[in-house]
Amino acid sequence: MDLNSDLGESFGAWAMGDDATMLEIVTSANVACGFHAGDPNGILTTLRAAAERGVQVGAHVGYRDLAGFGRRNMDVASADLTAEVIYQIGALQGLARAAGTKVSYVKPHGALYNTIAHDMRQAEAVIAALGAVDPSLTLMVLAGSPLEQRARQAGLSVVAEAFADRAYDDGGQLVSRKLPGAVLHDADVVAQRMLRFVREGVIRSINGHDVRVDAQSICVHGDSPGAVEMARQIRALFLREGVSLAAFGAGGAA
Amino acid sequence: MDLNSDLGESFGAWAMGDDATMLEIVTSANVACGFHAGDPNGILTTLRAAAERGVQVGAHVGYRDLAGFGRRNMDVASADLTAEVIYQIGALQGLARAAGTKVSYVKPHGALYNTIAHDMRQAEAVIAALGAVDPSLTLMVLAGSPLEQRARQAGLSVVAEAFADRAYDDGGQLVSRKLPGAVLHDADVVAQRMLRFVREGVIRSINGHDVRVDAQSICVHGDSPGAVEMARQIRALFLREGVSLAAFGAGGAA
Amino acid sequence: MDLNSDLGESFGAWAMGDDATMLEIVTSANVACGFHAGDPNGILTTLRAAAERGVQVGAHVGYRDLAGFGRRNMDVASADLTAEVIYQIGALQGLARAAGTKVSYVKPHGALYNTIAHDMRQAEAVIAALGAVDPSLTLMVLAGSPLEQRARQAGLSVVAEAFADRAYDDGGQLVSRKLPGAVLHDADVVAQRMLRFVREGVIRSINGHDVRVDAQSICVHGDSPGAVEMARQIRALFLREGVSLAAFGAGGAA
Amino acid sequence: MDLNSDLGESFGAWAMGDDATMLEIVTSANVACGFHAGDPNGILTTLRAAAERGVQVGAHVGYRDLAGFGRRNMDVASADLTAEVIYQIGALQGLARAAGTKVSYVKPHGALYNTIAHDMRQAEAVIAALGAVDPSLTLMVLAGSPLEQRARQAGLSVVAEAFADRAYDDGGQLVSRKLPGAVLHDADVVAQRMLRFVREGVIRSINGHDVRVDAQSICVHGDSPGAVEMARQIRALFLREGVSLAAFGAGGAA
Repeated sequence: MDLNSDLGESFGAWAMGDDATMLEIVTSANVACGFHAGDPNGILTTLRAAAERGVQVGAHVGYRDLAGFGRRNMDVASADLTAEVIYQIGALQGLARAAGTKVSYVKPHGALYNTIAHDMRQAEAVIAALGAVDPSLTLMVLAGSPLEQRARQAGLSVVAEAFADRAYDDGGQLVSRKLPGAVLHDADVVAQRMLRFVREGVIRSINGHDVRVDAQSICVHGDSPGAVEMARQIRALFLREGVSLAAFGAGGAA
Repeated sequence: MDLNSDLGESFGAWAMGDDATMLEIVTSANVACGFHAGDPNGILTTLRAAAERGVQVGAHVGYRDLAGFGRRNMDVASADLTAEVIYQIGALQGLARAAGTKVSYVKPHGALYNTIAHDMRQAEAVIAALGAVDPSLTLMVLAGSPLEQRARQAGLSVVAEAFADRAYDDGGQLVSRKLPGAVLHDADVVAQRMLRFVREGVIRSINGHDVRVDAQSICVHGDSPGAVEMARQIRALFLREGVSLAAFGAGGAA
Repeated sequence: MDLNSDLGESFGAWAMGDDATMLEIVTSANVACGFHAGDPNGILTTLRAAAERGVQVGAHVGYRDLAGFGRRNMDVASADLTAEVIYQIGALQGLARAAGTKVSYVKPHGALYNTIAHDMRQAEAVIAALGAVDPSLTLMVLAGSPLEQRARQAGLSVVAEAFADRAYDDGGQLVSRKLPGAVLHDADVVAQRMLRFVREGVIRSINGHDVRVDAQSICVHGDSPGAVEMARQIRALFLREGVSLAAFGAGGAA
Repeated sequence: MDLNSDLGESFGAWAMGDDATMLEIVTSANVACGFHAGDPNGILTTLRAAAERGVQVGAHVGYRDLAGFGRRNMDVASADLTAEVIYQIGALQGLARAAGTKVSYVKPHGALYNTIAHDMRQAEAVIAALGAVDPSLTLMVLAGSPLEQRARQAGLSVVAEAFADRAYDDGGQLVSRKLPGAVLHDADVVAQRMLRFVREGVIRSINGHDVRVDAQSICVHGDSPGAVEMARQIRALFLREGVSLAAFGAGGAA
């Protein structure tokens, strides 16, 4: 199973996250590309550390919105969005090459991630970007979203992800953050949930039913405090229980 | 001989230059990379037009200064500058790939161009960027500058350029823009000067002496009004006189 | 009657519009504040010209989106939006003071203008900004929009505007730009429409009916080419027909 | 004596500093204006806290360089710099008004601070900005710098500051950060130095001589870790020793 997390999100004098520690835990790093976060030198430092640790690298592309950290919906025209995603992927590919590694996948960030899960106009713009710059790039998407199907139809390699610290409803969809209980905070509970998910492919829903989630990666990043600790516990439990961790690229995605 | 010009410098709603027309004249296009000018979609449009016309593409990298159009000296730390140049080259490489072409060379823009011609600390940072992202990239530099020698020593492929609309002193250096007569405005005169330069390797200095200028490309862009017309006349005269125009990459650089 | 237009929209090396000419035509200038367009020095130049001509100044506040020229919807949190509008108004007030004039009103720009006409959450955020920074500022709004009523209820001085070059439906609302005939291009027709609007308070709708439009200002700016020419013809016709032009502030707004 | 510190330097999702705590210690707050740091909503929050605590507010104006945190020298044209400083002061004045306080002084930040201490071209541009937007604003400057004299000659109210954690040479100038011993780290030592400075007007130089420093404010912010703790100790020692702390505005500046 693959564990992924958002990294490279510092910007100039402003630090964010603990990339060095997270790179000891995860197997895939979603690295910011400068549009919602990340300055070139900080990104390069994170890429070098990922290369050293053998952690797979993905382009964490976002809206052009540093002030909003890419978390605000933006009504970007399709041609602009396609070009902006290509630009970000290309920039990260350049930095990755300089760091002795490469970009294996693309994971949209924040509002772009949420929007394209359901908005097929913007989704098409992102899919077109991958096709134009490098069709061998895998697209990481929300498991069970309309985007997942659309991206597969477009011929892209797709990896679906589950969220370690989020509650699911009976339909296998994420419970909205606006509802109580949407975000889980107990690292033990979260680790056990993910262990069961890996072994049986099911997650207990917020209503107490087992729902099937088809995902090839687990996102251990979250807005919850203690994200690093949670990631560490998941990894520790997995290793203890004999669940092997490896970047999805190692086994191939489809 | 190669003719190069700065293109892709529009930004969002703001247009600049007439890229379509210039691409019918020049053999190499210095395309903005988003730091001093250029938005991804506008850049992509220019790259597609360059690909269609068979015009060679260079990365016109600059300081991160949209408000100042990259024309203001900035005291950027070496590691930051190296990473910023890699970022820009990578971004343009991604867009170029999407446009069906590739980045063949790098030409720093504006204040960065002027600074690294003589400031070897920043020069080293730019040289390191090329080495890190793609050592096969050619660096386009000011003919006769300290940078030219340093870049060759570093093992880079280098192309030196002459400026069509600028006066030279007896030492073969550009006359400072602050001095009278530094910028030439007569397209006929400029075209004849460049014809002689191509044939004999010399340019008449501001003091009336012939000075040798070793350059493999002519920059036909300038801040002078009528830049397109000047470029057109140079091309027309060259063709009339049997001087063949071709991107320097076609014949190889050293 | 008041004529208003968008000015100060250049940015650094990129020029936009012909502010000097428009300031000879209009009585109120919506001056960009740096978030969607406008750099401080360019804004200051426009403000000085407005001061010289006695043209009233408004703050043309927008989303923080230079790359999109403030034309893209953004889902900005209320507290952020309020603070961003205050920031822009304050910045323009500072520059206006330096130019020997003052900011009399606020007109939101582009996507912000369109959004708050109907989205009362963002509208409240903008209304709160005016209340916080200077309750004597007039808010310029789309005539007949929900915002108009809400802003009056909040105790703000409000000026409603009609659009010279836009078609209206039978309900007195703007015809969507996506529909044919939404934008008028014949300067003669436009000038005659506006003359009738000023005299009788009615505009002929796209379906041929007379609809009442309650507005105290006419926006002569548009995305239509020939905006300056259109503005000039309106002014000329008004003067010929004895319609006096004056900033709404001169007669007071309610 | 006045204690001042840099505040409001968070940006969007990126936090910096502990403004709430520092506002319990200092008597003057240099608040970022959005060019080197600070987003409008974060600035507003800091201004409200300053208003609540009765802490005097200054505009911490900087170069337009978020990526470099305003710490990189930039060769900005005078007219641009004047307009940029006016813009920032105006923006902060607007936010201060909304927060129920006002801007009493201006302290340039980072590279701008260092540059105008000695570069009179840029210094004149900043002085012109204060004169244009509000001549009653006090300019806070490096004690003993050429700027101090120039600003007084220009008729501005000036406050000179000493740096609590920096070493001084025998001429009363700051020892360059590049030299060993330039930055002091022992909070006790620093507090005792400042106590002596307040009582006797002298600071022990790096060579062991007493040098006179004429300053009306002490900057307790520094790049040294433990800045808050150092500020706290200075305040505690001053209060214990009967040195009263008050914003310089309370006693008047000259």
